[in-house]
Amino acid sequence: MASSLLTRQLAVSLRLASPGSRYVSKTATKTVSEFEYDAPSMKTAVPGPKSQELLRRLEEIQNVGAVHFFCNYEESRGNYLVDVDGNRMLDVYTQISSIPIGYNHPALMKVMTNPNNVSAFVNRPALGILPPENFPDKLIESLLSIAPSGMRRVQTMACGSCSNENAFKSMFIWYRNKERGYANPSEQEVDTCMINQRPGCPDLSILSFMGAFHGRTLGCLATTHSKVIHKLDIPSFDWPIAPFPKLQYPLEEFVRENAQEEARCLEEVEDLIVKWRQKGKPVAGIVIEPIQAEGGDNHASPDFFIKLRNVARKHGCAFHVDEVQTGGGTTGKFWAHEHWGLDDPADVVSFSKKMLTGGYYHRDELKPDKPYRIFNTWMGDPSKNLFLSEVLNVIRRENLLEEVTRSGKALLQGLYALQTQYPHILSRARGQGTFCAIDACNDATRDSIMIKARNKGLFMGSCGEKTIRFRPALVFKEYHVHQLLNILNDVLVEHK
Amino acid sequence: MASSLLTRQLAVSLRLASPGSRYVSKTATKTVSEFEYDAPSMKTAVPGPKSQELLRRLEEIQNVGAVHFFCNYEESRGNYLVDVDGNRMLDVYTQISSIPIGYNHPALMKVMTNPNNVSAFVNRPALGILPPENFPDKLIESLLSIAPSGMRRVQTMACGSCSNENAFKSMFIWYRNKERGYANPSEQEVDTCMINQRPGCPDLSILSFMGAFHGRTLGCLATTHSKVIHKLDIPSFDWPIAPFPKLQYPLEEFVRENAQEEARCLEEVEDLIVKWRQKGKPVAGIVIEPIQAEGGDNHASPDFFIKLRNVARKHGCAFHVDEVQTGGGTTGKFWAHEHWGLDDPADVVSFSKKMLTGGYYHRDELKPDKPYRIFNTWMGDPSKNLFLSEVLNVIRRENLLEEVTRSGKALLQGLYALQTQYPHILSRARGQGTFCAIDACNDATRDSIMIKARNKGLFMGSCGEKTIRFRPALVFKEYHVHQLLNILNDVLVEHK
Repeated sequence: MASSLLTRQLAVSLRLASPGSRYVSKTATKTVSEFEYDAPSMKTAVPGPKSQELLRRLEEIQNVGAVHFFCNYEESRGNYLVDVDGNRMLDVYTQISSIPIGYNHPALMKVMTNPNNVSAFVNRPALGILPPENFPDKLIESLLSIAPSGMRRVQTMACGSCSNENAFKSMFIWYRNKERGYANPSEQEVDTCMINQRPGCPDLSILSFMGAFHGRTLGCLATTHSKVIHKLDIPSFDWPIAPFPKLQYPLEEFVRENAQEEARCLEEVEDLIVKWRQKGKPVAGIVIEPIQAEGGDNHASPDFFIKLRNVARKHGCAFHVDEVQTGGGTTGKFWAHEHWGLDDPADVVSFSKKMLTGGYYHRDELKPDKPYRIFNTWMGDPSKNLFLSEVLNVIRRENLLEEVTRSGKALLQGLYALQTQYPHILSRARGQGTFCAIDACNDATRDSIMIKARNKGLFMGSCGEKTIRFRPALVFKEYHVHQLLNILNDVLVEHK
Repeated sequence: MASSLLTRQLAVSLRLASPGSRYVSKTATKTVSEFEYDAPSMKTAVPGPKSQELLRRLEEIQNVGAVHFFCNYEESRGNYLVDVDGNRMLDVYTQISSIPIGYNHPALMKVMTNPNNVSAFVNRPALGILPPENFPDKLIESLLSIAPSGMRRVQTMACGSCSNENAFKSMFIWYRNKERGYANPSEQEVDTCMINQRPGCPDLSILSFMGAFHGRTLGCLATTHSKVIHKLDIPSFDWPIAPFPKLQYPLEEFVRENAQEEARCLEEVEDLIVKWRQKGKPVAGIVIEPIQAEGGDNHASPDFFIKLRNVARKHGCAFHVDEVQTGGGTTGKFWAHEHWGLDDPADVVSFSKKMLTGGYYHRDELKPDKPYRIFNTWMGDPSKNLFLSEVLNVIRRENLLEEVTRSGKALLQGLYALQTQYPHILSRARGQGTFCAIDACNDATRDSIMIKARNKGLFMGSCGEKTIRFRPALVFKEYHVHQLLNILNDVLVEHK
């Protein structure tokens, strides 16, 4: 474990909590900067020889085409991911944006060594029928303590796709209950639902947006429209797909054009709702990401989202905000949609990834009317809730949302500077908090930059057609921003 | 922790492994009987006052209609589940059949306290892109060591529904690749798949059976036909549904009738495959449970399944055996379909529950042709694989499959005796290993028996319309069978 003079100096210069301050408790006396490494350290090209050997072994069991390299998670610390060849990289992709407070955070290690927690790991309960004694308390102290405005109910699930699938189901159930005036289903509905036919299995739809990603199970996949490889050959539903605004950058130069573009998209949403109602496939819900991530880090203005919420309200559709990737603090607020200032809260907010458990919050009206309608064997995993509680403690104690805002500003400023310096290579720097992105001139250049950066110790993610996405952990400090920018600059200098 | 003279005497009389025998290793020196309780012990009716108070609290957060009672998992041991009111019940439902070797098994506790394992819990990787160093080894020593015949490839997933959804996707991809002669997709396919339309999102189907349960996400739900509450109000696919054989009991008295019934169902399967092909919605795969569990513990003969596999082969459909509930040893073999003696192995075998991780095995032909086609953020959870490895060690060391066969025979004999004694209440006792069931004369009687038994310390599950299902852990011994039968008899005497 590395802890150098440099790191300690930086901790002071960045005004991190010092021992004895109000942010430091007994459960985790070290901030990430005190226990992590100082810098990347590269020994081989990536993937190195050990990774390549392991790839050959795994290939006999699974398709390995997506594997970047094999990791030594024991040796990874904070923002630094160590691979099996001893390469140590600054990781700003963090397991597809799912590591909240860095690798091997001392506070999370302590969850594992607390004997009171062992039973939660060893005996995974069927939460829907036999919850543990502390289940209501754990929900209140973890998930409900950060509930988006207007939401007092939460349902845990195992992953992002299951969260969205069940959120969709709760919207369908709510919509049909409204339609039938909360009466019992007809005999015909009861009979037909068992054989997948109308009216028991109604032709309802979910409206989604081009470029969206909401998961890959068949219900979610019908609302996902980001890449061919996700969709090809898989049967789908005839559900409406609206255009997502394509904003022009820099935003301040295209205020009028972007407002027009958003208005056009909203108009199209209303047209589709009417059209699908006429088709006999009414829109039960609208699902949208606050920032389209997999689709290329596409942003829209708060005004767009507020108006979209009003459109949903006007047409009697539920409004579902998918915060699977944007949630958990990475935009500088706990939920990205809190930046919009909605007066009328969303109906459903789903989450996973950095939250460690999947699930969704929902308004009281979306509560399932009967047991076993929203249900599966495990309904989440209480051991993940234990980690989440501790993550939330760390976020509060170390003021990580403020840190994210500060680091995010530094990162975005740095990206602006780079695109000014390399205008033929980079453009459209954008972001909120540390949830940042920049476009390369084409996909080959993007891929080449990423590989060169990786070999210099910077591991980034891609999205859309030619975008680099930054998804660091919440413990990503200004110190790490400068490391990132320096490596990226070195790559771009060579690329010239 | 209880360890009485009675338990030790029984351990000897049932010839359990004694210290020093070849089944005892350093990782788990105690068999379940040595550390668990002797018998149920009831203090209140269930749910007791503490459970009722917690129910009121949880109701403010979630629908609690399915919650039986709240549990004290710390105090639960082996086959005995302890609730928050101090009631100790013999648990033969085991968290909807998902606890493999009883509560708080010492071998699993040791996984938690082994410092080498901490990192696997604290740093959940995105397995599809950044697997840990030991990932191939762990797959080989756990999942591949018990792979069904003909299968050398396995894909982990988080839960049963995700396993089946992705298994379906792999069958669709395989089917379309066959259809297009493994050529690249057309431009039209590429364009249309992004907007959910044919030919990119083709009208393929999965054939399933009435009474089946394969999960509740939208793809799985289109193949689930067991209860109205699962299906009502949720849009579905127009996929073919065949009848599952309705066998008459006792089997030996209805040999001819049951053979005819199975032949009728197989004929219907072939008719549906032809009909759906003509409709332009070809059947890419057939999915079936070896024993329909949620649908009422419906069995069919090995001959039926062998012929069904041949039908799938004949019509070019993949054959998917869903072992989510039947797998993991509960039928006396590791996979229930190993009882059939298939010459031509299945194409896909999915699992979850007792396996602790979800996933599916598949034949080489079903391997996805490109990366990112079968993919999600986590692709399972290596910490669950650690527990599974240890569960497999315990199963081998303690010869638990033999134990299950022995206990299962005793249980089924006991159920036969009870239905002979109470013919107006019970009928159709059936089972394989400890995966047993018996029908009550109607649902009200079934529910009443279950509540009375619970109050006497026996916690059972229900399925179908009027069935009691037994899903004990693999550490369920003849000793526990007698406890179960005694309590059930006491309830039935009173019921007379």
